[in-house]
Amino acid sequence: MMEFFFKPKSVAVIGASSKPGKLGYVCLKNIINCDFSGDIYPVNPKAEEVQGIPAYHSLAEVPGEVDLAVFLISAKFAVKTMEVCAQKGVKAVIIQSMGFKEVGGEGKLIEEKIVDIARLNNIRVIGPNCSGIVSRNIATTIYPMEAEIPNGNVVLIGQSGLLAAGMASDIVVNQTLNINKVCSIGNKCDVNENDLLEYFGDDEQTEVISMYLENIADGRRLVKIAKKVAAKKPVIFLNGGRSTAGAKAAMSHTGSIASSAIVVNTAIRQTGMIAADDFTELMDFAKVFSTQPVPTGNRVAVVTAAGSVGVVVSDLCEAHGLVLPKLTAETIESLKDVFEENMPPDNPVDLYYSITKIGLNKTLETTLAGPLADPNIDAAILILAGFEYSMEPIEKKTVQKIAKQYGKPIVICMLIGHNKYKNIIREELGKDLPVFTSLYSGVKALSKLCEYGIRQHKRETLNEN
Amino acid sequence: MMEFFFKPKSVAVIGASSKPGKLGYVCLKNIINCDFSGDIYPVNPKAEEVQGIPAYHSLAEVPGEVDLAVFLISAKFAVKTMEVCAQKGVKAVIIQSMGFKEVGGEGKLIEEKIVDIARLNNIRVIGPNCSGIVSRNIATTIYPMEAEIPNGNVVLIGQSGLLAAGMASDIVVNQTLNINKVCSIGNKCDVNENDLLEYFGDDEQTEVISMYLENIADGRRLVKIAKKVAAKKPVIFLNGGRSTAGAKAAMSHTGSIASSAIVVNTAIRQTGMIAADDFTELMDFAKVFSTQPVPTGNRVAVVTAAGSVGVVVSDLCEAHGLVLPKLTAETIESLKDVFEENMPPDNPVDLYYSITKIGLNKTLETTLAGPLADPNIDAAILILAGFEYSMEPIEKKTVQKIAKQYGKPIVICMLIGHNKYKNIIREELGKDLPVFTSLYSGVKALSKLCEYGIRQHKRETLNEN
Repeated sequence: MMEFFFKPKSVAVIGASSKPGKLGYVCLKNIINCDFSGDIYPVNPKAEEVQGIPAYHSLAEVPGEVDLAVFLISAKFAVKTMEVCAQKGVKAVIIQSMGFKEVGGEGKLIEEKIVDIARLNNIRVIGPNCSGIVSRNIATTIYPMEAEIPNGNVVLIGQSGLLAAGMASDIVVNQTLNINKVCSIGNKCDVNENDLLEYFGDDEQTEVISMYLENIADGRRLVKIAKKVAAKKPVIFLNGGRSTAGAKAAMSHTGSIASSAIVVNTAIRQTGMIAADDFTELMDFAKVFSTQPVPTGNRVAVVTAAGSVGVVVSDLCEAHGLVLPKLTAETIESLKDVFEENMPPDNPVDLYYSITKIGLNKTLETTLAGPLADPNIDAAILILAGFEYSMEPIEKKTVQKIAKQYGKPIVICMLIGHNKYKNIIREELGKDLPVFTSLYSGVKALSKLCEYGIRQHKRETLNEN
Repeated sequence: MMEFFFKPKSVAVIGASSKPGKLGYVCLKNIINCDFSGDIYPVNPKAEEVQGIPAYHSLAEVPGEVDLAVFLISAKFAVKTMEVCAQKGVKAVIIQSMGFKEVGGEGKLIEEKIVDIARLNNIRVIGPNCSGIVSRNIATTIYPMEAEIPNGNVVLIGQSGLLAAGMASDIVVNQTLNINKVCSIGNKCDVNENDLLEYFGDDEQTEVISMYLENIADGRRLVKIAKKVAAKKPVIFLNGGRSTAGAKAAMSHTGSIASSAIVVNTAIRQTGMIAADDFTELMDFAKVFSTQPVPTGNRVAVVTAAGSVGVVVSDLCEAHGLVLPKLTAETIESLKDVFEENMPPDNPVDLYYSITKIGLNKTLETTLAGPLADPNIDAAILILAGFEYSMEPIEKKTVQKIAKQYGKPIVICMLIGHNKYKNIIREELGKDLPVFTSLYSGVKALSKLCEYGIRQHKRETLNEN
């Protein structure tokens, strides 16, 4: 059934508009612009055509079958339109309007009626109070997609409208994350996180799932499904409303009775999901998990030109369960030409002398590559600065090449420099690799990857025995 | 005595160079380019002039008195040069070379001899293994200062060479922080954090002190001095090497035996210093403390267009000791025109409807200003997105004007949008106000300011009674 949301053969846009700025305009435009190859039926009581496509005054007048109907209409017309969907045999409905359970009163009653109609007629409903779907195949979202949507390996599930749509727009335009789908579930009157987790858990293209929830629809089912899915692929989870203040805000946002921190933390522990603390982490962790190989250990090489950064990264690593082992004698021997005699290679690996001697690009080819080749090392943290001398490896994609060669994860932290160069590093290197602007965030993200890798490795070892 | 470092009448640059790229080139150039009005004496055994200034083959040949001598020479010449400094009556020395205690062996012995000469001759020494001073009045640092150094209210003290210099360069070029001085203290063979804390504690231009240390020179004295200074102005403190791994790295970086986390945490508790966890926080907290008024409470208004962001900020606020009170009836009444009837103003304050109705700029003038005027509110967290509609308030400096009007602190978090607009917000708004790229970092920084404000307010109340 979920296929009708993500691979419909035909879609009706109810409330489609020719007026730029209107949600019904943006949504239809996104559907036209993405790779959707099925039939598109704009529905608008006053239009003969919308954005160059023949329109229908009501859904009932649409000539062909409709797999998916997207509602961009006022809540007060929603029940009537659901009834028409039932008569028409629509399989899936996305309600991208607000004014339902989250506002209480009449809105809550309308939402209940919609659910009744859906159940009775075997229609699945996403929303209401959501911003729809973003994928290359079908994009119903309410933010303009200003670039081609990737066909990647990350799925975002968000119990939020604006933010999910805004994140999708950010990701698509800035090319920061290789998404496959962004799915906003809003009030989740019917389809909830469990349905989607199960679906994306089985979906081969989905390699990483990031999920924002303001309440848990069915805790027992979540634990059961998430356990199964998290054994196969990383599930990153941000829970909103776990505090008293947050729960109050969640109530007014999606009409949710939020789950307490205790319940959520227990669910996370039992399932092996990866907890994120804010939206930046939700994205950052997804970036790391979707671009970096999964290590089997937590032994990190820290590669930096500044000694003090090495010290603070070491502290943060220890606080986050990462260790900095000695490099092997072979690695030390292989690096000694680019180190001063009285300052032999160590971990943290100090690039300073080498950079002054042979430049950053060649330094990385030896002094980042060496530790990555070391059997004592599972992963690397590379510190870059936003100065002109950093541009050569960015242009030559040196870090990307080294990363590929050794098959070990790398995270980059960028602390200082000129905005001009920092922006280039963030934008160019950031397309391929995770680039952080604080040591804390880089170390934390890598620690999550290592934790996951160790757990998966244990699981596999147990299964083999 | 410390005045000879920061307000010398004459400076000798020992190892001054005409060769771009050399540290002795950059250092001299920085001194020439800053507002230093005293005599400059380049010393170079092979040059008659350096960068257009008459040079001397040795310090002994310098005709006038020398207040400050900066060493950019190999460690092996350092003892001999110190002896000449003593004969010459030099008052202050900054040793910006490496190869001393941090490399052990001979380097350690050289450093000990330097200290002996200094003590015997009443010379104060900063360094070695440091990158010098950055201030408008005197800039000896080893990174080129590519813009005018501010004459602001923040002092950074760093037991690190490259990073202190790199941060200074970042701050000066990007105009991110209103610094007064950056002072790199390296191995601190003589001048240490206590001397500088005491000096800057009494300095009226210094309103915020940010400090990075890899070890504590004298714990008892630090507690005594920091207690006194922290009662007058915020002292932000990042301690490197507090873990086993970090201590090992610190040993190889500055030859320091690092202090354990327990000792450092006790010192922080006893003195009222503000703990930072990494360099980004060291800068971020300085930004907040140096640009924002100090509140007397922890009651926060969260102002956002996205409900989910309000939920997660609420969670983070509660975790960091901030509360989200109800707005007063007067504030709610004053805002009701820009809210939907079924979604009255609340805290988090939801901007969505108002933005769609009157645009972001007018929305801020009502819906950011209203909560800030509210007597229930001590501070605000504003969430902005990097889209075109955010450019009007950036151009008009609307947030800055509102911030000034109400005298309450504001931090801005920017989560989503296009890099183009995000960069403008970060760079333009970031010159005046603290702009964060994660909710976690913004909430944490504000919580530190509120903690500090509440403590100071208690202190003042106690003093009055």
